[in-house]
Amino acid sequence: MKINGTPYRTIWLAKDGRTVEIIDQTRLPHEFVVVPLASLEDAAKSIKDMWVRGAPLIGATAAYGMALATLADASDAGLERAYQVLHATRPTAINLKWALDEMIAALTPLPVPERSAAAYARAAEICDEDSAQNAALGEHGAAIIAAHHKAKNRTINILTHCNAGWLATVDWGTALAPIYKAFDAGIPLHVWVDETRPRNQGASLTARELNWHGVPHTVIADNTGGHLMQHGMVDLCIVGTDRTTRNGDVCNKIGTYLKALAAKDNNVPFYVGLPSPTIDWNVADGVKEIPIEERSDREQTHIFGKTEDGVVREVQVTPDGSPAVNYGFDVTPARLVTGLITERGVCEASPEGLKGLFPERA
Amino acid sequence: MKINGTPYRTIWLAKDGRTVEIIDQTRLPHEFVVVPLASLEDAAKSIKDMWVRGAPLIGATAAYGMALATLADASDAGLERAYQVLHATRPTAINLKWALDEMIAALTPLPVPERSAAAYARAAEICDEDSAQNAALGEHGAAIIAAHHKAKNRTINILTHCNAGWLATVDWGTALAPIYKAFDAGIPLHVWVDETRPRNQGASLTARELNWHGVPHTVIADNTGGHLMQHGMVDLCIVGTDRTTRNGDVCNKIGTYLKALAAKDNNVPFYVGLPSPTIDWNVADGVKEIPIEERSDREQTHIFGKTEDGVVREVQVTPDGSPAVNYGFDVTPARLVTGLITERGVCEASPEGLKGLFPERA
Repeated sequence: MKINGTPYRTIWLAKDGRTVEIIDQTRLPHEFVVVPLASLEDAAKSIKDMWVRGAPLIGATAAYGMALATLADASDAGLERAYQVLHATRPTAINLKWALDEMIAALTPLPVPERSAAAYARAAEICDEDSAQNAALGEHGAAIIAAHHKAKNRTINILTHCNAGWLATVDWGTALAPIYKAFDAGIPLHVWVDETRPRNQGASLTARELNWHGVPHTVIADNTGGHLMQHGMVDLCIVGTDRTTRNGDVCNKIGTYLKALAAKDNNVPFYVGLPSPTIDWNVADGVKEIPIEERSDREQTHIFGKTEDGVVREVQVTPDGSPAVNYGFDVTPARLVTGLITERGVCEASPEGLKGLFPERA
Repeated sequence: MKINGTPYRTIWLAKDGRTVEIIDQTRLPHEFVVVPLASLEDAAKSIKDMWVRGAPLIGATAAYGMALATLADASDAGLERAYQVLHATRPTAINLKWALDEMIAALTPLPVPERSAAAYARAAEICDEDSAQNAALGEHGAAIIAAHHKAKNRTINILTHCNAGWLATVDWGTALAPIYKAFDAGIPLHVWVDETRPRNQGASLTARELNWHGVPHTVIADNTGGHLMQHGMVDLCIVGTDRTTRNGDVCNKIGTYLKALAAKDNNVPFYVGLPSPTIDWNVADGVKEIPIEERSDREQTHIFGKTEDGVVREVQVTPDGSPAVNYGFDVTPARLVTGLITERGVCEASPEGLKGLFPERA
């Protein structure tokens, strides 16, 4: 999407055709820093230190990491080493492993001298595929926003939680793709951006990218959405998901469930932007079966921000001696979800709904 | 309640019998600073600058402010001036006006030389009455916690939102009074403390006072409660209220409604600690009739905390150029409330329930 008028992706090839460039997302929202990745080690570090985040972007960075590795050593042993180094950066990231497997499958059949060019080509394809998938999802979601606008003939207010925007993908995002598509099509809209404590991905990343692209938005405390919905100030919610079960239960950033409850209580449609790789066909009951990651309590007790003198510092908000706990995700039961917006269209959050769009998995 | 073993109130008379002492609550949770109030002007400043906050404590401070004023000028003109100065500090605070009217009613009939002693006596009474009212509320609420403990025979987990503790009152608090009473009675309990963005009253004040008194607690992001309730980790919720309608609709800190929805969805009892002066008998439908204060957006975009070097600083969490909005309260409809805990006992959140306990208002 655009940064002050200039189109960007989250990862791209530099003009030399070899170096890969990314945005250091740990510096957002206060600083915009492009980092060149010139080697396997650079790529691994960028994933490990979370300069890049979001499953699709991690996968894309890993793919380019393999390409960078071939510059130094494109032998079978070199590929194997690159695979191990990159896989170890975020061992539980499904997309990372998928991207690495794709690269290995594309490269190992080839003679060593042909591998570098093929690696760059396949990495670029992986990026394009992610972007195209999200763009398709965005078109389907934009049709929903357009229908609201047609019915109401005024600015449409959309609430989102966390960051499922282009910064979490190669381009377009998932929850935000429908918003960008609708905005670019000229539909008047405004986004309520949940701050998304404890890591503030809404206040930092979602606000940052909407601001860059010029989409009207307002940051709110996570506590605010219910009040807004009670007073008709939200037309629909669109959130992302880290994992959605075959029953349509949606695992997403902690707090999503509370917004879905408020949406249900106020007859506000609640949609999930769901690229199909995020569907976990092996899990049925999300609340019972999905283990919820417990993250560092420091993310709850401390907050990063910019001081008056422009320096980004960490401050402690809790008193010394008060413990905190930090669950990363929650599960929104399918009964609270109005629809799942996928790259193939919109379906009901149910086994039947998902099977209808993805019959090959039925 | 106790601060590291020593009993405290939020306002008390110093040993000289004239000076009033308070805790500067703007310095909490990171610093504990007792401030002496020696004059009307000191008392007015302490209210205006929010060194004291919470309706009952503001009222008590105003009462002592009148007493301090009599030291300099106990004439009718002096009392009138003190009334004006104190009333202007927080002109919309109902308790403040109530306390000032009480003082005027007690003092004006008296000869001028007797007014100072009477003023100190009435101010002390106002403090004692608030403490006694909250203690009674606490006993009724503790019985509910005790019943949970009796039925489950394990540590009882209670979720609370914002700060309705002793720091917001003279002593005991409202939502926290049942918790202190149950804890002091030896019932094993643990409190989930909602951080309560944007002003973090949970993470700062509630955590601070539970920590001081020795009550086991854990600070959580406001997003977390739904997940905890889905997994049986909350036995009951107790929150405070700024204003409850005669129908039992509960206006409280923004985000309360979301927790009540989650409680309902998971069959977790949801109680409100409600001292009777907080009942607004003139309002029926809280969602429709109660205007919600919109506060400074800076409370949302910036956060105060302690830096590594121990200095309290303000940091900006949102990107430059992203607007924010800050609604202070929301309304939880009576249908989501299990019971109202008052100083006279516990009742249903309904016109009948409230009339049953307060027949003189029926």
